[in-house]
Amino acid sequence: MPEKAFQDLWPELFTQCFRCGRNNEHSLQIKSFWDGDDTICTWKPKKIYEAGMGILCVGILSTVIDCHCVNTAIAARYKAEGRELGSILFIPYVGGTINVKHIKTIFIKDPIVLRAKIKEMKDRKTIISCSVFSGKNECAKAEVIAIKA
Amino acid sequence: MPEKAFQDLWPELFTQCFRCGRNNEHSLQIKSFWDGDDTICTWKPKKIYEAGMGILCVGILSTVIDCHCVNTAIAARYKAEGRELGSILFIPYVGGTINVKHIKTIFIKDPIVLRAKIKEMKDRKTIISCSVFSGKNECAKAEVIAIKA
Repeated sequence: MPEKAFQDLWPELFTQCFRCGRNNEHSLQIKSFWDGDDTICTWKPKKIYEAGMGILCVGILSTVIDCHCVNTAIAARYKAEGRELGSILFIPYVGGTINVKHIKTIFIKDPIVLRAKIKEMKDRKTIISCSVFSGKNECAKAEVIAIKA
Repeated sequence: MPEKAFQDLWPELFTQCFRCGRNNEHSLQIKSFWDGDDTICTWKPKKIYEAGMGILCVGILSTVIDCHCVNTAIAARYKAEGRELGSILFIPYVGGTINVKHIKTIFIKDPIVLRAKIKEMKDRKTIISCSVFSGKNECAKAEVIAIKA
């Protein structure tokens, strides 16, 4: 049985989220997993998320980055506390700051791959760095500060 | 007759955009206007754009900010060139960098108001600062670097 995504382990209360909510039929259905010490997310844009001319809307890209990074912060906190992912009590984090630098145009025809790592973890604040790839190209770099709610 | 939004003056080629496209039925329908030397955008989130518990998904907020700021850069360039908004040739800009700092939780029950201003305009690069309000509260601050395509 494949491993469950971080987002699919959280309590019902958070499952309406536009980014990843399993109970929101319009959600982007973002799924994040451990890959060694990094986390990884593969996401295929739908046609409705283009900016025009087959190019991915960069706001939607920020949404995917935000979700993957905040969920990375949550998963890393579970790991640091030696707790099984999704076990109660849930550890909520929210996006504090997001900074995205676009390097190359991303087209919606291909899936994108996000690879994130923990840069710093303090008591309430976790800094996550993230790279976004389309094919072999690194198309965006981001840094997210997630805050323990 | 009310003034047209910046986004509704651009060529057909860009009207599929998820952010503002008048020809994309799933788009956020973001509308930006001049308000003196600033630009203003009022946007009411739909229920599907929540993160949970009535809170606005911060990724969608980035999408609205990106659209309003990039369109501000385009409108400002038309103004600087003394040209009527939407006159051909169109002046395309894209988001280069976006940096959003979240200050207060935003709830989807109320419209948000974005107020942006041009901080710096160079040949190809325009820096826009933006504040997001819900009611009387400033809930987020952002800086966007838009690049002339």
